[in-house]
Amino acid sequence: MGPAMQLYSFFNSSTSYRVRIALALKGLPADYLGVNIRTGEHRAPAYAELNPSRAVPTLVDGDFALGQSMAILDYLDQRHPEPRLVPLEPRLRARVLELANVIACDMHPVNNLRILKYLQGPLALSAAQKDAWYAHWAAEGFEAVERLLARHGSGPWCFGDEPTLADVCLVPQVANALRAGCDLAPYARVMAAHAHAQQHPAFVAARPQAQPDCTP
Amino acid sequence: MGPAMQLYSFFNSSTSYRVRIALALKGLPADYLGVNIRTGEHRAPAYAELNPSRAVPTLVDGDFALGQSMAILDYLDQRHPEPRLVPLEPRLRARVLELANVIACDMHPVNNLRILKYLQGPLALSAAQKDAWYAHWAAEGFEAVERLLARHGSGPWCFGDEPTLADVCLVPQVANALRAGCDLAPYARVMAAHAHAQQHPAFVAARPQAQPDCTP
Repeated sequence: MGPAMQLYSFFNSSTSYRVRIALALKGLPADYLGVNIRTGEHRAPAYAELNPSRAVPTLVDGDFALGQSMAILDYLDQRHPEPRLVPLEPRLRARVLELANVIACDMHPVNNLRILKYLQGPLALSAAQKDAWYAHWAAEGFEAVERLLARHGSGPWCFGDEPTLADVCLVPQVANALRAGCDLAPYARVMAAHAHAQQHPAFVAARPQAQPDCTP
Repeated sequence: MGPAMQLYSFFNSSTSYRVRIALALKGLPADYLGVNIRTGEHRAPAYAELNPSRAVPTLVDGDFALGQSMAILDYLDQRHPEPRLVPLEPRLRARVLELANVIACDMHPVNNLRILKYLQGPLALSAAQKDAWYAHWAAEGFEAVERLLARHGSGPWCFGDEPTLADVCLVPQVANALRAGCDLAPYARVMAAHAHAQQHPAFVAARPQAQPDCTP
């Protein structure tokens, strides 16, 4: 193992949370560098120099800086394959990536901070309209995830006895929805996988409230 | 090569378009089955039975049905690795996945059909507000892609002499933005990669206007 990597992260960013889980599962140390996306620190020139897409997280491994959580998760899996987050067996691999990308592509982007800010800023929507937007897309997404788990999943993790990229993506998305006050009781399989993960030290260590930049 | 696969696709869906490009690049035949997402055919019970997340595209390979375009693209790359869409060399692989996922996660989901319908339906926004939303997120996204290409890319494709997953995702996103009337002149590298792809028969064959379900 080389020198420690650096992770540019915001405690409440669920894409940062995914990478924190992966680092912890793989036992990889990383210096934690907080980037406050609420106050726009991700748009500062020095950070944009590091990450041209101006978003969190960014992983720095020696002279290599990489953005976009899904790319970072693949990079970690390639460079540090144990334990593997994306299985090699083709059909299980496909199921894990299907569920992970339903979360990463269909759920997370439409309810993240920049979208909610646009709804209340330029569009001047009410808090009730913003909350309805959030609840609508969370419900659409969790219904899809629940149906996928019902069809293809098996406990105690999303896909069997080991955590995969599906769990790495699911747990932060559930945390977001709970923080936003969504009722997730209808999604029994989602909540069972989430509850199981809460017992694992890597998932505990990666939680927002355990990060050095956490504020109320 | 086994029997032909089936692709459930909508001609103007850019996620379907990605998979059509990949199939054509790899020379894989697939039966084309149109699913009209404008009229809600993706929500019909028979289709939901095939794809629990109720979205296009779905790829069917024998007894295996898979949804979510990014998972399908990985599946095709695993099962039919030539030509490879995601390179194996770790840093090039990471750059390709970074750019592809900026498009798949940060750009496409916020401007797709279901979102635009929600803006004009439940939120009752004006056409001008909807257009401003579209243009705002397209500009944010293409600026990020242009910066990534300026820093890490090289022509004539996004990353050198061969098409990769980055081009597979970029070309449909450009097509969407042009259809929506966005001004993409500021994004010279994006447009150069897009123009180059238009000369490749796989990208030509995959275009919306070449699909059997294409309507004006």
